Amino acid sequence: MEQLRLAIIGGDGIGPEVTSEARKVLRAALDGTVDLVETEFALGATHYLETGDILTDETIDAIAEHDAILLGAVGGDPRDPRLAGGIIERGLLLRLRFAFDHYVNLRPTALHPAVTSPLRDPGEVDFVVVREGTEGPYVGNGGSLRTGTPHEIANETSVNTAFGVERVVRYAFDLAETRSKRLTLVHKTNVLVHAGGLWRRITDAVAAEHPDVTVDYLHVDAATIFLVDRPSRFDVIVTDNLFGDILTDLAGAIAGGIGLAASGNINPDGTFPSMFEPVHGSAPDIAGTGTADPTAAILSAALLAEHLGHADAARRIRDAVDQDVAQRPAPTTTSETGDRIVALVAAA
Amino acid sequence: MEQLRLAIIGGDGIGPEVTSEARKVLRAALDGTVDLVETEFALGATHYLETGDILTDETIDAIAEHDAILLGAVGGDPRDPRLAGGIIERGLLLRLRFAFDHYVNLRPTALHPAVTSPLRDPGEVDFVVVREGTEGPYVGNGGSLRTGTPHEIANETSVNTAFGVERVVRYAFDLAETRSKRLTLVHKTNVLVHAGGLWRRITDAVAAEHPDVTVDYLHVDAATIFLVDRPSRFDVIVTDNLFGDILTDLAGAIAGGIGLAASGNINPDGTFPSMFEPVHGSAPDIAGTGTADPTAAILSAALLAEHLGHADAARRIRDAVDQDVAQRPAPTTTSETGDRIVALVAAA
Ligand SMILES: CC(C)[C@H](C(=O)O)[C@@H](O)C(=O)O
Ligand SMILES: CC(C)[C@H](C(=O)O)[C@@H](O)C(=O)O
Repeated sequence: MEQLRLAIIGGDGIGPEVTSEARKVLRAALDGTVDLVETEFALGATHYLETGDILTDETIDAIAEHDAILLGAVGGDPRDPRLAGGIIERGLLLRLRFAFDHYVNLRPTALHPAVTSPLRDPGEVDFVVVREGTEGPYVGNGGSLRTGTPHEIANETSVNTAFGVERVVRYAFDLAETRSKRLTLVHKTNVLVHAGGLWRRITDAVAAEHPDVTVDYLHVDAATIFLVDRPSRFDVIVTDNLFGDILTDLAGAIAGGIGLAASGNINPDGTFPSMFEPVHGSAPDIAGTGTADPTAAILSAALLAEHLGHADAARRIRDAVDQDVAQRPAPTTTSETGDRIVALVAAA
Repeated sequence: MEQLRLAIIGGDGIGPEVTSEARKVLRAALDGTVDLVETEFALGATHYLETGDILTDETIDAIAEHDAILLGAVGGDPRDPRLAGGIIERGLLLRLRFAFDHYVNLRPTALHPAVTSPLRDPGEVDFVVVREGTEGPYVGNGGSLRTGTPHEIANETSVNTAFGVERVVRYAFDLAETRSKRLTLVHKTNVLVHAGGLWRRITDAVAAEHPDVTVDYLHVDAATIFLVDRPSRFDVIVTDNLFGDILTDLAGAIAGGIGLAASGNINPDGTFPSMFEPVHGSAPDIAGTGTADPTAAILSAALLAEHLGHADAARRIRDAVDQDVAQRPAPTTTSETGDRIVALVAAA
């Protein structure tokens, strides 16, 4: 039987709770076809405050030995001064994305028929944001001078390379070919002319190889308007790391809340393990109450299964989630939701 | 009688059409109290394609002699290769903002009772975004290496100074004092740690001088969720140039469309003329059809009047717009809308 080694990073807050439901569902979906070996890694704000370590090189090496990573959520109390400046987000989450060259941050958005969108008339909402994951303003190329004085200057540099942009744009076009063949580049070419020019030229060049894909372009500000006014105009969006961060939270909101938004941090080359995580955060305020919705984590596990070649298991997980969302009792608990979805997967 | 010298930049597309309605309304509102001297400046994509000039130093000097600027919209056909790379936006609009040190880009958002929001249940929408206007990723500090080759690197640098951040943050706190005393800083401090740290420290320091203002912080991605899910949580938002650009288009959308969104590019020191413009663009597709809605331009004229100390005229313009929006016939034309609002202002 094929062996799949999963690195599990529950993380902080509701992270471990939702991850444990996702694991139950994944086991049910892969049951009998795969020998699933799960290794838990204690990482996150709590781990850091206890040990002083955020993510050691040894731990990165150990995680690298796995076929994929399932991550819950990381981040502690935002008001804790020991966690200021995104030390956990950057030292753990972004470090994993960069170390494992997760250049595709894949974020599908679909409005489930049983879910109420905050939009009055959402129309069809079914698109995927392909967010670049290893460049842009996320590279950590910032610094400050005369810090803390009235003469402080703080700079942040967005770094973009032809190599980095081309590979994610190619991925997006390939994805568009499997969907309704519409691709929208989102950037801010009228202000960020150098980065924007690079994105635009590469998109144009790759578009020439995909004559059947309809390509258009929107400035990021205009894209937010269309997400609210006519989300059906979108099929595949390809965009920069920061714009993708912003647009996918907005996309999650219009699809009824980021409680349902799954994501994959993908290294398409397969050199490193890809990492799957809900878009939501660690929500320390509801941790331990058993009220966190594990659906986004479970859908992230479906993305993981699909990525590892288990499209059938992925489809069964998604179908089970669809069914459960359509008839979900209220109130319900984190583990009840997991149990219902496990039962639906097993019955399929 | 007090003389007010206005520089008028109609610009491109629907810009001149909506500006001419705004001027009619402004004249009606200031009639008898002010000697209004209006100077038109032919600027924009059309002017550039005809003359090769975007904005000469002489023109900047001539505009500087005015008390304020009323701008329609600039920008030509986005597919025209002669206008690529935002040459008009940067060479004209951003150049004016930077040359005249418009460090406050003021963008109020309110949902008119007669306007339908795309949100199912918008609640109260009444907030102001104070967008920094002279720093951040807009400074034009980018460049590229090996351009057009597979080894291209394109960088963009966001520049932020204590001087620049403090003055806009102070403006936002002063504004919050006149409203419901709630201020939200929006940034991305967990990724852009240097710029974000500067914004955060300065906001904390200024907050200490305003103990009656409740201050909170949101990452820009989370802010988009709240704008959709609970816009009533916002009163004054203070943010960076790029985040402000994105959030105000989204804000315009949730308030029923950027056809109603006005803005002021303000130099609070009064060293240079401030500039007032609708948030919308030049909409070349509907130019000349007489269907453009001049309301945002008219509300921008109200901001101008208020800025120049004519609070009473500003209030009369706003009241007239409120009345007209509540009973606006459909269809109507650009000039009919202007005429109705002029009549309402005159009757007040
Ligand atoms: C936690 C943060 C660093 C992260 C990001 O900005 O990428 C998050 O918002 C996300 O979208 O995964
Ligand atoms: C036209 C463009 C340069 C401008 C900006 O990005 O500031 C516009 O979007 C705005 O918001 O006024």
